[in-house]
Amino acid sequence: MSLPKLQIALDNNTLSEALQSASMVADAVDIIEVGTILCVAEGMEPVRCLRSLYPNKVIVADTKCADAGGTVARNCRTAGANWMTVICSATVPTMKAALTEMEDIQVELYGNWTFEEAKLWQGAGLNQVVYHQSRDALVAGETWGEKDLNKIRKLTEMGFKVSVTGGLELETLELFKGIDVFTFIAGRSIRDAASPFEGAMKFKAEINRIWGE
Amino acid sequence: MSLPKLQIALDNNTLSEALQSASMVADAVDIIEVGTILCVAEGMEPVRCLRSLYPNKVIVADTKCADAGGTVARNCRTAGANWMTVICSATVPTMKAALTEMEDIQVELYGNWTFEEAKLWQGAGLNQVVYHQSRDALVAGETWGEKDLNKIRKLTEMGFKVSVTGGLELETLELFKGIDVFTFIAGRSIRDAASPFEGAMKFKAEINRIWGE
Repeated sequence: MSLPKLQIALDNNTLSEALQSASMVADAVDIIEVGTILCVAEGMEPVRCLRSLYPNKVIVADTKCADAGGTVARNCRTAGANWMTVICSATVPTMKAALTEMEDIQVELYGNWTFEEAKLWQGAGLNQVVYHQSRDALVAGETWGEKDLNKIRKLTEMGFKVSVTGGLELETLELFKGIDVFTFIAGRSIRDAASPFEGAMKFKAEINRIWGE
Repeated sequence: MSLPKLQIALDNNTLSEALQSASMVADAVDIIEVGTILCVAEGMEPVRCLRSLYPNKVIVADTKCADAGGTVARNCRTAGANWMTVICSATVPTMKAALTEMEDIQVELYGNWTFEEAKLWQGAGLNQVVYHQSRDALVAGETWGEKDLNKIRKLTEMGFKVSVTGGLELETLELFKGIDVFTFIAGRSIRDAASPFEGAMKFKAEINRIWGE
């Protein structure tokens, strides 16, 4: 089992705030995500700026693309993103069209997706998924539970690289012990720390402690 | 049965192209949509520009929002949008959060949504849906058929305002005769016409011919 990576989600509302957040944590994380909120607020400019500032980091454009996969992916790639996300309810042709334009595509799991669909994605060449607790569902009181862990385990056993996100705190990581998580995606819990850099380093240390044995 | 409205989808890649398209057709359409491609490419700037240029038009930000509904909707409203779209696989809390920030929210129907879910959306106060043929699915050879028309009819009978989109040509409108369509959304078939204004006016005339009797 390899060490899960750490991804910072820049779910800021403005380019300037995102660049500030990135400047504080970039050295401590493996992957920088331009969050959906930021993509919709500022377009591809944050991707272009982050690419110029961090030429060697993996950058994900979290577009949650639902249609016109080829065009959206081309725009993301041109701006400098390595990966892009598509929503699970997109059609397989949309996902395939996106994949032809990018290094890699991540399928964002929301709502009532099925493992049968996951097999179709795999058949189309998609090998990354993002398992979510929706931010709004978390606010409405949902939490990580055994049903989530079972699904994540099953997806890893199918061969997917599974990224995990949604209300992740330092204390939450232990829940995933023994599961071959590809990446933990954290946003506020790092960005809102007194020192975001130290916040990120604590996540890295905890990942090392749990998966590095 | 009231007359279906006409919506132009600005699925351009750049702000300048979108403003050019809008300038040619705005007078002929009821609703201007900032398409997903454009939102992701240019952020909310197209919404701000279109609001300033067309203060009395309904503007839809087609974000296909999947999460953080309240934040994304607030950004869309602040930029000047009247309506915003959410993807059907978003959680109901995401949809409700979006609805608190906007005049109205449209649920975009992709993938394996169910009528049971549609009832939940309705219970949460959502009364608009957008029925799609995915652009990528159309390219892959799918077309409008009786199964689509039956679903659209059922949604209207449930009380939804149903907008219809995806590969709509002038000749396609006749298919929907007798169905209480709220809005037809057209993009390329208008934008790529020799005269986009005349293209839009032909759609309006055809809508009048079929639904205006």
